[in-house]
Amino acid sequence: MQDFLKKAKASSSVIATLTGAQKRSILEAMADEIASESGTILEANAKDMAYAKEHAISEALQDRLMLDAGRVADIANSLREIAALREPVGRVLDGWVTDAGFRVEKVSVPIGVVGVIYESRPNVTADVGALCFKSGNVAILKGGKEAEHSNRAIAEVLQGVLAQRGLPKEAIALLPDSSREGVASLIKQDKYVDLIVPRGGAALIRYVSQNATVPVVKHDKGLCHTYIDKAADIEKALSVITNAKCRRTGICGAMETLLVDEAVAVEVLPKVREAFATYGTVLRGCEQTRRIIDIAPATKEDWDTEYLDNVLSIRTVEGVAGATAHIAAHSSGHSDAIITENYTTAELFLNTVDSACVYLNTSTQFTDGGQFGFGAEVGISTNKLHARGPMGINELTTYKYKIYGDGHTRA
Amino acid sequence: MQDFLKKAKASSSVIATLTGAQKRSILEAMADEIASESGTILEANAKDMAYAKEHAISEALQDRLMLDAGRVADIANSLREIAALREPVGRVLDGWVTDAGFRVEKVSVPIGVVGVIYESRPNVTADVGALCFKSGNVAILKGGKEAEHSNRAIAEVLQGVLAQRGLPKEAIALLPDSSREGVASLIKQDKYVDLIVPRGGAALIRYVSQNATVPVVKHDKGLCHTYIDKAADIEKALSVITNAKCRRTGICGAMETLLVDEAVAVEVLPKVREAFATYGTVLRGCEQTRRIIDIAPATKEDWDTEYLDNVLSIRTVEGVAGATAHIAAHSSGHSDAIITENYTTAELFLNTVDSACVYLNTSTQFTDGGQFGFGAEVGISTNKLHARGPMGINELTTYKYKIYGDGHTRA
Repeated sequence: MQDFLKKAKASSSVIATLTGAQKRSILEAMADEIASESGTILEANAKDMAYAKEHAISEALQDRLMLDAGRVADIANSLREIAALREPVGRVLDGWVTDAGFRVEKVSVPIGVVGVIYESRPNVTADVGALCFKSGNVAILKGGKEAEHSNRAIAEVLQGVLAQRGLPKEAIALLPDSSREGVASLIKQDKYVDLIVPRGGAALIRYVSQNATVPVVKHDKGLCHTYIDKAADIEKALSVITNAKCRRTGICGAMETLLVDEAVAVEVLPKVREAFATYGTVLRGCEQTRRIIDIAPATKEDWDTEYLDNVLSIRTVEGVAGATAHIAAHSSGHSDAIITENYTTAELFLNTVDSACVYLNTSTQFTDGGQFGFGAEVGISTNKLHARGPMGINELTTYKYKIYGDGHTRA
Repeated sequence: MQDFLKKAKASSSVIATLTGAQKRSILEAMADEIASESGTILEANAKDMAYAKEHAISEALQDRLMLDAGRVADIANSLREIAALREPVGRVLDGWVTDAGFRVEKVSVPIGVVGVIYESRPNVTADVGALCFKSGNVAILKGGKEAEHSNRAIAEVLQGVLAQRGLPKEAIALLPDSSREGVASLIKQDKYVDLIVPRGGAALIRYVSQNATVPVVKHDKGLCHTYIDKAADIEKALSVITNAKCRRTGICGAMETLLVDEAVAVEVLPKVREAFATYGTVLRGCEQTRRIIDIAPATKEDWDTEYLDNVLSIRTVEGVAGATAHIAAHSSGHSDAIITENYTTAELFLNTVDSACVYLNTSTQFTDGGQFGFGAEVGISTNKLHARGPMGINELTTYKYKIYGDGHTRA
């Protein structure tokens, strides 16, 4: 492991100084190779699928794991899209001349060595490897055991292109020891690894956060709220909340709790029930809600539950202050929304709620790098530091100061 | 402790939403109160000084600990300077309209609850408390035992002003349990604390980095290099390197190792020895250096030693590639410089060296928030993420996305 990490660290200075044109050309070659090695990748995937069937792995997980010619073509296309992204390294973020007269330039630079831990979908191997490469970082990838053969096949294609171009294959590498012990060791190698991004279940994220000495950017749960204010346009509200809950119930940006201003609860709640009836959504309400519409009771636990399912808890609150107080107590800091036509109420909500994304009259399901216009997404950070919310390729860079003087000495 | 941290967390939403005018007025009142309570602060400081003398604490440390009327006035002035800084919260960092047509605004927001661990100088209590307050953060301060009375007196003055304005005194608080156990507990309270900044000895920083579950921004050692290239202007070189080493030898931006291009070593090294002779600097050299000038030998350990003293290690290297290779192996990633008149060599060095600050023809002692024009300094980060290099008040903020739609739903 030490030996592998030393090589990874050493290759980071090679990757960091490639030009944008070199990286684009290499990523395009990777896309071509993925397409032409489609057969090999599908053979490897068939082994993973056989393993999954033998071990009675769930249909949902099998669907995420499965590759076919179309999905391999999608992987290649995704590499081409990443190749085409604007060069993330060397952007001048700020610059000025100091009182002493020397010039300071704050420029974006790669982070260094980035470890990503993820599950199931083999396309993540290509996507994350390519995003790290495009941003000048070395990628250490640790996929799930269930996708082992597929991930290896994909990584070997990418490494083949690196080798052809005379670059170290450690620049996009699978973690050699993919056991639990391998991960335990990786997250403590702060001498060699600059960032760990855990993308996966709550247990994994908790484990990594509690034990890593390497900085961690978490992709944690999303317990998202929408608050319907007394000044809301009801038609907009119904359209936004059904989208926020039902478009896809299993994503982290899905709404889990609806808050309704008690001033309009009698008018709004029956319409809410009617709107969600179309989607078969299970509704659970607080006491006051249940005095207006006859739905199942919400328990105390409901306010802290990320259902990731077609279930919604509903609570009435005393105006925007009641909404922000509930959100402060229960939100995961991912995405929270207000529906209102009132300017002052809107700004009060947006400024008070301490979440990565705060929405006015918009579905929380928009929290997504693609929807934000970032292109391919590294993840959605629930950290407050370094990166917050959707992470695009620029969030895989940090900065340094370049200082240009002419013999300047400090007095 | 839990109870204290709950109050601190709760007060963060109050502090985060104060206006710039309110914060400025409060900080000015704090400056006035520090000045008018000068007597009380000096009495408290006398207790700390008596303790220091009893326990035979070093003269240097006693000097850092000691307050007099002038130093208390400096504390008040520093608070006025912080009051006058440009409002760091609510800066619009980026903004755009997405394909779907809703507007995204990326704005700076406070981090939340910031814990700072520091030593000796009582003025840090006021400075860091005020910087956190100005940036909308709650400050939890843990000073050294030797400054206990002075720190408490200063904190009580600041808290008195908070109380007068009806604000929670936990917004600028000393850690109630200042023992080793208190620190051990603080750095694991990720539910309540958003950032820990350890400013102190290497042992403290290592301990915090290895054990914290709260994100840490380190203010770690500075093992800084200057490389004299064959295309250097020798007069500029001599002026810059003596400043980088000797202006103050005990600061983290002081040069510890001088690298000299072997192509000009015979010409340059005698002049280097002569220049440093004026300052009484102890020189230690590699073998090749010692064949040219007769100085003590440098051992392998010298290349990894932060002397913080009037000692300099000198090594000849094979051009800029030799310099960047030495720096990659031995630098602490703080500040490294090249002296050259050659454009291509300069850019190669600045782009290759992976340090927070990379200097061309400039003394590394400029790595400082004040010199960079940031005003008061929180510290100098040796992290790669969140903040890197000199940390001003803006580095005490993070960001969030405010999204303005008009009933937008995701397809």
